[in-house]
Amino acid sequence: MAMNFTSDNAYGAAPEILAALRDANSATAAPYGEDEITARLGQRFGDLFERDVAVFPVFTGTAANGLALATISPPYGAIFCHEQSHIAVDECAGPEFFSGGAKLVPLRGQHGKIAVPVVEEALTHYRGGVHSAKPAAISLAQATERGTVYGPDEIAALSEVARREGMALHVDGARFANAVAYLDCTPAEITWKAGVDVLSFGATKNGAFCAEAVVFFDPERVRDFEYRRKRAGHLASKMRFLSVQLERYLRDDLWLKQARVANGLAQRLERGLAGLPGIELAHPVEANEVFAGVPAPLAEKLRSSGISFYEWEAPRKGRTLLRFVVSCFTPEEDVSRLICLMRS
Amino acid sequence: MAMNFTSDNAYGAAPEILAALRDANSATAAPYGEDEITARLGQRFGDLFERDVAVFPVFTGTAANGLALATISPPYGAIFCHEQSHIAVDECAGPEFFSGGAKLVPLRGQHGKIAVPVVEEALTHYRGGVHSAKPAAISLAQATERGTVYGPDEIAALSEVARREGMALHVDGARFANAVAYLDCTPAEITWKAGVDVLSFGATKNGAFCAEAVVFFDPERVRDFEYRRKRAGHLASKMRFLSVQLERYLRDDLWLKQARVANGLAQRLERGLAGLPGIELAHPVEANEVFAGVPAPLAEKLRSSGISFYEWEAPRKGRTLLRFVVSCFTPEEDVSRLICLMRS
Amino acid sequence: MAMNFTSDNAYGAAPEILAALRDANSATAAPYGEDEITARLGQRFGDLFERDVAVFPVFTGTAANGLALATISPPYGAIFCHEQSHIAVDECAGPEFFSGGAKLVPLRGQHGKIAVPVVEEALTHYRGGVHSAKPAAISLAQATERGTVYGPDEIAALSEVARREGMALHVDGARFANAVAYLDCTPAEITWKAGVDVLSFGATKNGAFCAEAVVFFDPERVRDFEYRRKRAGHLASKMRFLSVQLERYLRDDLWLKQARVANGLAQRLERGLAGLPGIELAHPVEANEVFAGVPAPLAEKLRSSGISFYEWEAPRKGRTLLRFVVSCFTPEEDVSRLICLMRS
Amino acid sequence: MAMNFTSDNAYGAAPEILAALRDANSATAAPYGEDEITARLGQRFGDLFERDVAVFPVFTGTAANGLALATISPPYGAIFCHEQSHIAVDECAGPEFFSGGAKLVPLRGQHGKIAVPVVEEALTHYRGGVHSAKPAAISLAQATERGTVYGPDEIAALSEVARREGMALHVDGARFANAVAYLDCTPAEITWKAGVDVLSFGATKNGAFCAEAVVFFDPERVRDFEYRRKRAGHLASKMRFLSVQLERYLRDDLWLKQARVANGLAQRLERGLAGLPGIELAHPVEANEVFAGVPAPLAEKLRSSGISFYEWEAPRKGRTLLRFVVSCFTPEEDVSRLICLMRS
Repeated sequence: MAMNFTSDNAYGAAPEILAALRDANSATAAPYGEDEITARLGQRFGDLFERDVAVFPVFTGTAANGLALATISPPYGAIFCHEQSHIAVDECAGPEFFSGGAKLVPLRGQHGKIAVPVVEEALTHYRGGVHSAKPAAISLAQATERGTVYGPDEIAALSEVARREGMALHVDGARFANAVAYLDCTPAEITWKAGVDVLSFGATKNGAFCAEAVVFFDPERVRDFEYRRKRAGHLASKMRFLSVQLERYLRDDLWLKQARVANGLAQRLERGLAGLPGIELAHPVEANEVFAGVPAPLAEKLRSSGISFYEWEAPRKGRTLLRFVVSCFTPEEDVSRLICLMRS
Repeated sequence: MAMNFTSDNAYGAAPEILAALRDANSATAAPYGEDEITARLGQRFGDLFERDVAVFPVFTGTAANGLALATISPPYGAIFCHEQSHIAVDECAGPEFFSGGAKLVPLRGQHGKIAVPVVEEALTHYRGGVHSAKPAAISLAQATERGTVYGPDEIAALSEVARREGMALHVDGARFANAVAYLDCTPAEITWKAGVDVLSFGATKNGAFCAEAVVFFDPERVRDFEYRRKRAGHLASKMRFLSVQLERYLRDDLWLKQARVANGLAQRLERGLAGLPGIELAHPVEANEVFAGVPAPLAEKLRSSGISFYEWEAPRKGRTLLRFVVSCFTPEEDVSRLICLMRS
Repeated sequence: MAMNFTSDNAYGAAPEILAALRDANSATAAPYGEDEITARLGQRFGDLFERDVAVFPVFTGTAANGLALATISPPYGAIFCHEQSHIAVDECAGPEFFSGGAKLVPLRGQHGKIAVPVVEEALTHYRGGVHSAKPAAISLAQATERGTVYGPDEIAALSEVARREGMALHVDGARFANAVAYLDCTPAEITWKAGVDVLSFGATKNGAFCAEAVVFFDPERVRDFEYRRKRAGHLASKMRFLSVQLERYLRDDLWLKQARVANGLAQRLERGLAGLPGIELAHPVEANEVFAGVPAPLAEKLRSSGISFYEWEAPRKGRTLLRFVVSCFTPEEDVSRLICLMRS
Repeated sequence: MAMNFTSDNAYGAAPEILAALRDANSATAAPYGEDEITARLGQRFGDLFERDVAVFPVFTGTAANGLALATISPPYGAIFCHEQSHIAVDECAGPEFFSGGAKLVPLRGQHGKIAVPVVEEALTHYRGGVHSAKPAAISLAQATERGTVYGPDEIAALSEVARREGMALHVDGARFANAVAYLDCTPAEITWKAGVDVLSFGATKNGAFCAEAVVFFDPERVRDFEYRRKRAGHLASKMRFLSVQLERYLRDDLWLKQARVANGLAQRLERGLAGLPGIELAHPVEANEVFAGVPAPLAEKLRSSGISFYEWEAPRKGRTLLRFVVSCFTPEEDVSRLICLMRS
C-alpha cells in the first residue's frame, strides 16, 4: 500500500469538517458572504486572536498571499522575503500578478528564515528614491518552507525594521497551525503582538477541503481588500461552504489538535532518523516537515518500496535532499515503516 | 418560512454531489490536479462535447471568465459583450484584472443578447490601428443575464464575425445547463459546432458547492492557461474535490435533469404571471429566471410576506423590475405561493 | 502645395521653444529632473494657477492621462468619461494599462461633453458594492474631442458629484490652451476653483516638440506619482529638455497667444462655412477644431485639391463628417483656400 | 568650475543632432510615426545591422527595455538577468509593470556580467511546471552597468541556452555604442549573429536629447509591439523629432565616433589611476565608466574640489566605490584634473 509523504495536501478533509459542510448544506443562505456563518467568522477569529480582526475567506493560499500582499504593497512596491519562500518560488509569480507588478526581493537565510541583518543589507539597495521599487512589505512564512518556526522575538525584530521603514509585515501561515502548536504561545503573541499586520491563515493543508483566510489585525490595512478579492474570482458565491470549514476548523481547537498530531509524527520521524549513518537532517524539525539529506540511491529504494515524497533539490555529488511531510491523517505505521526502510 | 428567489446560488449542493465529495475524501491523492479524478475529467467532458477538449476546473465563474478571456485576449485587446453581461457589470472589472487591462466594449441588445449588427457597428470604431484596443474576442452569456438563450444560428452568426476579424468567441456558461435544457440540441451543437472557442462551464449555480470548468474546444487556444490559473490562485491543491463535483455533475445527466427542473419551475412561474394586470414579463423565460415589471408597492408587499428577490433596476415612475431566480431545489409550493401573492 | 488640417500635431514646434531647447543644451545638468529648470517649473505653474501645485513633465498626453488616472483610481476603480473621449477610444486602453485594469465607463453626451444627469444615471449601476468596479474618477476633456469647451459652472457641477461620491475629477487638457483662450476666465477658475483635482496640461499640440505636464492641485492626490512615472519610462534622464519646453511655453503667455491664433483661424473657418448649402457644422467651434458634415463626394474633391484632413466617422447615407484642425502655424491662406474650395 | 562625472546623461545633445532637429521642424508631417523620416529608419537600421530589422523609436531606455521584455515574456514569465542590471535595480520595477508581472530573476556574476553556469543553475529552480514562473528571456546589458563588455562568444553561449529553453535573448544597449566601439566587430556580429533577438538601442546617453530604439532582429518576435508602445504613451505624436535624432545619430558614424571619444577618455582615466596607492580599479574599463575603490575621505576631498560623481555602494571599512562616467563631451582637462586630484 502506498505511503504518501509528498505533502499534507495529499490527505483529505477532517470528518468533522465534512460533517459541518453537510450540515450547512441543508438550508438556503444569502450568497457572496452575506450569510450567517460568514458573519460569525469575525467573532470566531476575534476570540482566537484576542482582538478585533477583519477576516476574509478565500479558496487557496496563493490567493491569500497574493491578495494580502497586493493590499499592503503598491504595484511599484518591493516585498522582502526568503529566496525559497512559497511566494517567491511556488506561486508562479502570483504576488506579482495580484499586486500589478510588485517586486519580490529574494533574501538568503538559514533554515528558510530571514533575519534582520539580511533585510537591512537589502534595504541599502533601495535608497535610490524612484529608481528603485519602494520598500512596502516584509513577508515571512510561519512555519517556513523548511519546516522551521519563527519565535515571537524574531518576528518582533523584523517588525521593528518594517515599522521604521514604513513597511507592513505579512505572514504566510499556510502551516500556521503547526507553528502555533510548536511554540509555547498564543496566536496573538505570535502575530499582532509581535507586529504582524496581516496573516494568511491556512486550513487546507491541515484538514480542510479548501479554505484559507486573510486576517488583518489593523483595520487601516484592509482598505479595499474586498474589491480585490471579488475581481480575482475569490469571492465565493456560496461562501458559507468556505466559512463553515473555517468555523469548524477553529471549534474545539480542532486546528491545534490536528497540528499537534502532525507535528508529533514529524518529531517521531526526526527521532527515528537522527544519527542514522549517511542521513543528515537538514533543518530543525519544528513543524510537520522533515528534510533529510541522503545518499541518492536511497531515494530510489524508498520509491520502489511504495513511498512517495519529493526530492527537494537537484541531487549533487551522490546525495539528495528528501522532503517528508506528514499530515495529522498520516498513519503512524507509515512513519514507522519509513523509519525502518531508512534504517536498513 | 422564507421563500428565496434571490439567486440559484442561495441553494446548496445536490445530495449526489455531497456524496461524491464524501467518497473522494477517503484516500490520499496527488495534489494540484495530478490526481485520478481530475485525469478522468478530460474524457468526461470529451464525451459530453463529442470531441477532444481541454478542461480546467476553477473555483468560481468570475475566475473562469477572467482566465478564459485573458487567454484569448492580449492586455491591449477589446472584448465585445452585452452592456449588462456579468463580465461587464458584476465581476468588479475581473476580466480587466486577469487580462492585464483589456477593454470590455459594452454593446446594447434586447433581452440581454448581442447580435451581429451591433457588433459590426462597434467594430467600425476599432479600425484605427494601434490607437484603439485590438479586437480580440466576443463574449456572450448562455443563458444570458436576462434568462434568455441564444440559438445555434445566432451563435454561428456571431462566430462568423469573430472568425473574420481574427477574434475568439467566448461563452459565459454560468447557466449553460439551463440553456442546453431549453434548447433542442446537443452541447456540441450549441458550442464548437456553432463556432465557440472557449466556454466557462458552470456547475455552482446548478447544484455544486463551488465548481466551474474552463473548456477549450481548440487546443491552439489553451496556450499557457495553466500558468495563468496557478498564479491567480485557482489551481486547487486538493483539486480532486473540485473535479469530483464536476464529474458527478455530469454523471447520469444530473446537470441536465436539475436544469430541467429549474427551467420547469421558471416556466410555471411565467405562466402564473402571464396576463396578470399590472404585471409585465420583461423577457421570454428560457432558463431559470423570470423578470417581471410590477407596481413598486407590490415589491414591498412580497417582501413583507417573506419572499426574497432582487429589484433589478432602480424603480422608475412607480414601477420596478423584479428578478425571480429558481433553483432545481426551490420548493414547488414556493412558486405557487409567489404566484398567489402576485395575483392577489 | 499640401494643406494640412489633419491635426495640430502635424505642425512642428514654435521657434521660441526651439531656441530655448538650444540654450538649455549648452551646459551639464543633473539628470532625472534634479536640474534647475525642472526645479523652477513648480513656481512657474504655481504662478499660472495662483496656488501651490505639483507638476510632473512627461512625454505624451497618453502618458499624462494614464499616469494621472492611475494615481487617482485603484485598479478596481471605475472612471466615468465621454464615450468618444481620447482616453476611451484613442489611447489603446492606456488608462487600463497604467491603472492595472480600471474600467472606463463610456457616457453619452452632446458635443463631446458629459453632464451631471448622465453621470448620475451611470452611477446607479455602481451601487452593488464589490460586484461593480468602485467609482473612482470623472474624467473630462477640455477642450473636448469635438472642439467644444466646458464652462466653469459645468465643471463645478461635475465636481460636486465627484466630491459627493468620493471620486476625483481629472481633466485631459491636451488642448487646455485652446479652452482657456476661448473662455473668459483664468486657468485657476477653470480648474481647481471649479473642483478639478488633476490636469493633463498639454503643450505638444500647441507648439512644443513633445512636452506635457501632469498638474496636481491637491498635494494629497500626488501620492507616489513619481514612482509610477519612473516605472512607465516617463522620467526623462535629460529632463531639462522637457522642462525647458514647458517653461518657454508659459513665458510671455506664449501658450495663450498661440492658442488664440489657432482658435481665431478655426472661427474664421467656421464663419466661412456657416450657411453653405449642404454643409452642416456639427458642433460649436470653441477651440481649434471644426467638424463639418458634408456630401461624401466633397471629401474626395478636397483631397484631390491637396487638402489633408480626417473623416471622423464612417460615411452614412451619402454624407460624411470631416474634421479640420488648425494650428497656430497653419497659414491663413490655407484656411482661405479651404473655404473657397468648400464654397465652390 | 564644476566637473561632472555623474553620468553621461549630464551632458546634452550633439550639435549635429540639434541641427537635425531644427531642420525637421520646418515642415508639416504626418503624426504618430507615419512621417517620412520615421519611414526611413527601417532602412537605416537595416543597413547598420546588415539585415531586415523592425525598429521602433521610444523616449527612454526604461521604456525600451520594458516594452521589449513585455513583448518576449508573458506576464507569468521569468527573465534572467544580472542582479545589478539596470532593469533589475534602476527602473523601479518597470519590466514588471510593462509585462504585467513577469519575474526578474537576479543572477550573480563578476564585473556586471552573467555567464552560462549561473543561468543553468538558476534554471534548475524553474523545472516545476506551473508552480514556477515560465522561463521566457535572458536579458544582458551591453555595455554592462559596470562598464564591461560581452564578447560575441559570451553572447552566443547565453543565446544557446536561451534557444534550448525556448527563451528569447534581450540586450539592454543603453551604452551599445560604447560596447561596439570597444569590440573589434560589427553591430551584426555582436547582436543577431550571436543570437540576440531584440535590442534596446540607446542614443540618449551618447548625445541625443531623448531617443532610444527597440530593434527586433526576428520579425516573429515583434508581434503587437506597436500596441504596447501606444498604450504605454511611447508613441510620439510628433514622432519625426524622435526619429530624426536617431537618423542623425547613425549618419556618418556619429554614434561610433562619439562613443570612441568617450571610451578613450575613460581609458585615459583608467591609465591615470592605475597603480595609484590606495586606489583600486574594480572592473576592466571597456566602455565609458570607471569604477574605483578609494579611501572614504578621498570622496569628500574630490567633492569639495568641485567634482561630481556617484558613490556606487555604501562605504564599508573606510573604503568606498566611486563611479566616474565620461561623455564624449566631457572636457579632456576635466579628466586630467580628476587624475591630478586623485594622485595628490
